[in-house]
Amino acid sequence: MDQIQQLTSGLDTIWVVLTAAMILLMEGGFALLEAGFVRQKNAVSIIMKVFVDISFGALIFYFFGFALMYGKDIGGILGTTGFFMGGDLSHIALTISHDTYWLFQCAFVIAVISIVSGAVAERINFRAYILYTIAMTGLIYPIAGHWVWGVGGWLGKLGMVDFAGSAVIHGLGGFSALAAAIIIGPRIGKFSADGKANIVPPSNLPLASVGAFILWFGWFGFNSGSTLSATNTSIGHIAVTTMLSAAAGCAACILFTMMRYRKADPPMVINGALAGLVGITAGCAFVSDAAAICIGAICGIAMVYATEMLEARQIDDPVGAFPVHGISGSIGTLAVGLCAKPDAIREGTAGLFYGGGFHLLGVQALGLVTVCAWGFFITWVFLKLIKLIVPLRVSRDEELIGLDVGSHGVPAYSQEEGFLDLQHLKNNQ
Amino acid sequence: MDQIQQLTSGLDTIWVVLTAAMILLMEGGFALLEAGFVRQKNAVSIIMKVFVDISFGALIFYFFGFALMYGKDIGGILGTTGFFMGGDLSHIALTISHDTYWLFQCAFVIAVISIVSGAVAERINFRAYILYTIAMTGLIYPIAGHWVWGVGGWLGKLGMVDFAGSAVIHGLGGFSALAAAIIIGPRIGKFSADGKANIVPPSNLPLASVGAFILWFGWFGFNSGSTLSATNTSIGHIAVTTMLSAAAGCAACILFTMMRYRKADPPMVINGALAGLVGITAGCAFVSDAAAICIGAICGIAMVYATEMLEARQIDDPVGAFPVHGISGSIGTLAVGLCAKPDAIREGTAGLFYGGGFHLLGVQALGLVTVCAWGFFITWVFLKLIKLIVPLRVSRDEELIGLDVGSHGVPAYSQEEGFLDLQHLKNNQ
Amino acid sequence: MDQIQQLTSGLDTIWVVLTAAMILLMEGGFALLEAGFVRQKNAVSIIMKVFVDISFGALIFYFFGFALMYGKDIGGILGTTGFFMGGDLSHIALTISHDTYWLFQCAFVIAVISIVSGAVAERINFRAYILYTIAMTGLIYPIAGHWVWGVGGWLGKLGMVDFAGSAVIHGLGGFSALAAAIIIGPRIGKFSADGKANIVPPSNLPLASVGAFILWFGWFGFNSGSTLSATNTSIGHIAVTTMLSAAAGCAACILFTMMRYRKADPPMVINGALAGLVGITAGCAFVSDAAAICIGAICGIAMVYATEMLEARQIDDPVGAFPVHGISGSIGTLAVGLCAKPDAIREGTAGLFYGGGFHLLGVQALGLVTVCAWGFFITWVFLKLIKLIVPLRVSRDEELIGLDVGSHGVPAYSQEEGFLDLQHLKNNQ
Repeated sequence: MDQIQQLTSGLDTIWVVLTAAMILLMEGGFALLEAGFVRQKNAVSIIMKVFVDISFGALIFYFFGFALMYGKDIGGILGTTGFFMGGDLSHIALTISHDTYWLFQCAFVIAVISIVSGAVAERINFRAYILYTIAMTGLIYPIAGHWVWGVGGWLGKLGMVDFAGSAVIHGLGGFSALAAAIIIGPRIGKFSADGKANIVPPSNLPLASVGAFILWFGWFGFNSGSTLSATNTSIGHIAVTTMLSAAAGCAACILFTMMRYRKADPPMVINGALAGLVGITAGCAFVSDAAAICIGAICGIAMVYATEMLEARQIDDPVGAFPVHGISGSIGTLAVGLCAKPDAIREGTAGLFYGGGFHLLGVQALGLVTVCAWGFFITWVFLKLIKLIVPLRVSRDEELIGLDVGSHGVPAYSQEEGFLDLQHLKNNQ
Repeated sequence: MDQIQQLTSGLDTIWVVLTAAMILLMEGGFALLEAGFVRQKNAVSIIMKVFVDISFGALIFYFFGFALMYGKDIGGILGTTGFFMGGDLSHIALTISHDTYWLFQCAFVIAVISIVSGAVAERINFRAYILYTIAMTGLIYPIAGHWVWGVGGWLGKLGMVDFAGSAVIHGLGGFSALAAAIIIGPRIGKFSADGKANIVPPSNLPLASVGAFILWFGWFGFNSGSTLSATNTSIGHIAVTTMLSAAAGCAACILFTMMRYRKADPPMVINGALAGLVGITAGCAFVSDAAAICIGAICGIAMVYATEMLEARQIDDPVGAFPVHGISGSIGTLAVGLCAKPDAIREGTAGLFYGGGFHLLGVQALGLVTVCAWGFFITWVFLKLIKLIVPLRVSRDEELIGLDVGSHGVPAYSQEEGFLDLQHLKNNQ
Repeated sequence: MDQIQQLTSGLDTIWVVLTAAMILLMEGGFALLEAGFVRQKNAVSIIMKVFVDISFGALIFYFFGFALMYGKDIGGILGTTGFFMGGDLSHIALTISHDTYWLFQCAFVIAVISIVSGAVAERINFRAYILYTIAMTGLIYPIAGHWVWGVGGWLGKLGMVDFAGSAVIHGLGGFSALAAAIIIGPRIGKFSADGKANIVPPSNLPLASVGAFILWFGWFGFNSGSTLSATNTSIGHIAVTTMLSAAAGCAACILFTMMRYRKADPPMVINGALAGLVGITAGCAFVSDAAAICIGAICGIAMVYATEMLEARQIDDPVGAFPVHGISGSIGTLAVGLCAKPDAIREGTAGLFYGGGFHLLGVQALGLVTVCAWGFFITWVFLKLIKLIVPLRVSRDEELIGLDVGSHGVPAYSQEEGFLDLQHLKNNQ
């Protein structure tokens, strides 16, 4: 018996550690995706922001965030224990240790902030970004997360369901990204005086693509790992719905852009796959394969429309963070209310399409609106506060030179063959 | 007892899900490998084909392919149940669920079609490629696969053995790639009027290399995961023979190209490692470490000769899909007939070198020829059929401009610093 | 009972195979990191060295290295059985098979030689590098490794502790790299006649960054996998300290370079994360979370100073192999003597800060000095010997052209649009 407990605990631990590592590798995916989508002159600066996400994000979530999110609940609003992973966390009953649990959740919070980094690319001040990262990983996300996932959180108690975070991760991240993109304003030259959106080709689409493949890989960790237990019988099904939704989002964007633009549009196809992944994140354990395919396809197409809509409203989101995460996350959260199979979530609960009525859908909608509005407004407030300390945006000159050389003193790509001294000799010949 | 079953099933499930994810990450490897090997002007178009593989491939295999491959057998020829993963699949007796099994097999079929994508790079029409992908993942591969791996398949019943697919995946994929390369014809300028093969350096060897490393990583999932059970005692040995064969293929190519070309040739070294991996795929569970090293080295060197031979025959295979997959897959399949250790496959069976006689070798040869010929001829037929609907090849102008801009409207790499409008202003100054 | 043993053994096996695969993927990380840091004209040549590492390294370690390291001990100095994985290895008592164990250790030895490859980048002769790889993976590392990790090794018997190799992998690798960098001498133009260090921007920082993310991912395999058993209760804690130390090293470098250079310096930030990972490698299982954060931060900052110090002494280490691996590995090894929690290593042992006195610290220091000195001096001797056979360094002309074209006949990046023949036609128009 003891041996079986030991085996179970070991099995669950390696499952969570391996899937957490896969999620953390997604930071490499985000870095590639964003560096590939932005202009060459800003490719390093966006990657430096991902390094801020993973380093400051992990530390701040260790110091404060985890406690606010998963600590002992007070009033359904926030957690109050577990700062520095100390204090009473006995309400967290898992076969894995608390710090293993922290690691997995840490990988999540880092993903959230990385979503925002894309929307503010090519213009945000690096110091302002560090401060915002601290706010997001220490406060904004943990509190909203507590409402849904914390023991005692008010949305969770109402019955809101978000398996791996279509709302908590992607909705919140996407709407925070939207707020940030609006406050910081569009990149110089993105919109003409007459309101026309101008474009610039992505600097490195092969990098962006491999970023998407790495994110796809990591998503198996994200969704399946969220069982937190390796003997959960949903694991296989979760991985399958994840795969099908991603494939459907990608295929839908291939076909849809072939019809709409008369060519399969690479950035849209890349984002279509990601939209499918985001969309299935809430319901991966609860919906059928067919529903997963529909969710993925709808998210892919909605992402295309949302991208066009942002441009029409002169909101500049360089990598499509809001269309991919905000919109697909919202669709996915609501889809649970529609497509949840009977008893999949809990005994007696089903989505609207299975005769479960409007209750679940209503709760999902309430939770979604709350979490997204929270992300939007608190991000707005924090960025205004940060603006009192440091400029939110780099100077006009720096933006034109590019943030790589401007903020970090080094270009992303260099074809220099010799050292400065050699160059000097050559020039004098 | 129940708990042990639950543990076993959980363990097997996470093993298969994790290794399936690793195999799916190989699509990122294929994308990088191919984008790095082709010319810059076609780097995105080849990656878009990989997106077609993973999206259309997964969906079609879900709708039809799996049923034809693993459904209830009829006459040893094909499966007849399991369309949309429904119907009677009770003959599949595994500790993992049927849909988890589907996920793993889905990762395989996507690899097959990705093999072909390399051989038709830089010239195939995108619509034709989508149609061919549907044929391959819905029909060509599933039927051949049924013969060897389906319950009741006629080659499997004869005793053919192909642990993780040297024949079924790589032989089939490689010979299909050969047929496609021949039908579509060489790229403009690849061969001079006098028949001389012209070369162009790969556009991005660092990307191609990291593609190879990702493929190498994924191969541990490919081969070891094919046990489908985490308590299979061969897992360690499989991973070891996989490693040794890859290392031997790579080292052999380093030394061989140093002798033959007086320099270690990077594209050959990259493909040498892959050749070693392909070669060991059939026998990884059945051959000794020493045999694995020999198989890898032979495959690496054979790949170099096969590459030269293709060029001499004016067949244009831009990334070496046939030499790597077709040739090494064939060698690997036959090697099982030679080197299978006594009783490793099943009681009483051994390879020729272990006194098992010619029976196993004969069956392997028969199966190999059947599968490869099937791939070659049915691909031929399908491409001829597709040609009736859409052109197989892009126009001459599009090929010269490059498929990235020609078919997808966007270059792979851009050094633009500003938006169109800014450019306009600059030009007017 | 039998079933439980079978489950345990299966669980441990997949844990070790998966983590070994993760470590082997780190070769892709090293390749990207180094290719991104060096000049474009040497990007392929450095990757070719990584292919040498993984191919020759694996084979040589299979033939000889493993036996010297883990074979039956003689006098505490070296192992004597296990050549070609044959002979008596009964003293290795693990739940996993001996060849699975080999695979994991093989991934380690390949990491060691890859550390050195960075320090000799852009100038070492390819043949000399192959010979050195054979020496390192067949002799230098296995012997030092036996002292600490082999059953009966003299440093291990003294009580030296190095969980996943801050000393054995990184200290040894780093000091060997230092010796190699000194013997081979700086790149042409790196130092002016007046001793001033000249710089050249890294050729591809996005590639280098994603290399770091892949290494970070692999490190979870490196450290957690070193338990060699999935039921080891330290696994979660190991992963957490690994994460925290890496984050701290990265964050410290962001803040420190912002203060010191008035900008967050991308190469330093990348290396800062790696320094944190190296530093925690020895103590990941034994120190507290808070200690892990301190170790990471100290390693990150020490790395910056060490980089400056090398430049001041006119030692040219193009990718910072010594500061990252040699210095952080040393700090991490000593940190165990300071911060090991009571009874974490073994009953009755604790670090200095926990009242364990100077004994452990002394043993750690002795072991560290021994291993690093061994690496430094034997590398020195071997390189001198290799110099008798082949030149250590490429010719001046080859170095100026670049090793890619010079040694391997192909550039890393090409923008050629057509084949040679087409070019010819164009030129004649």
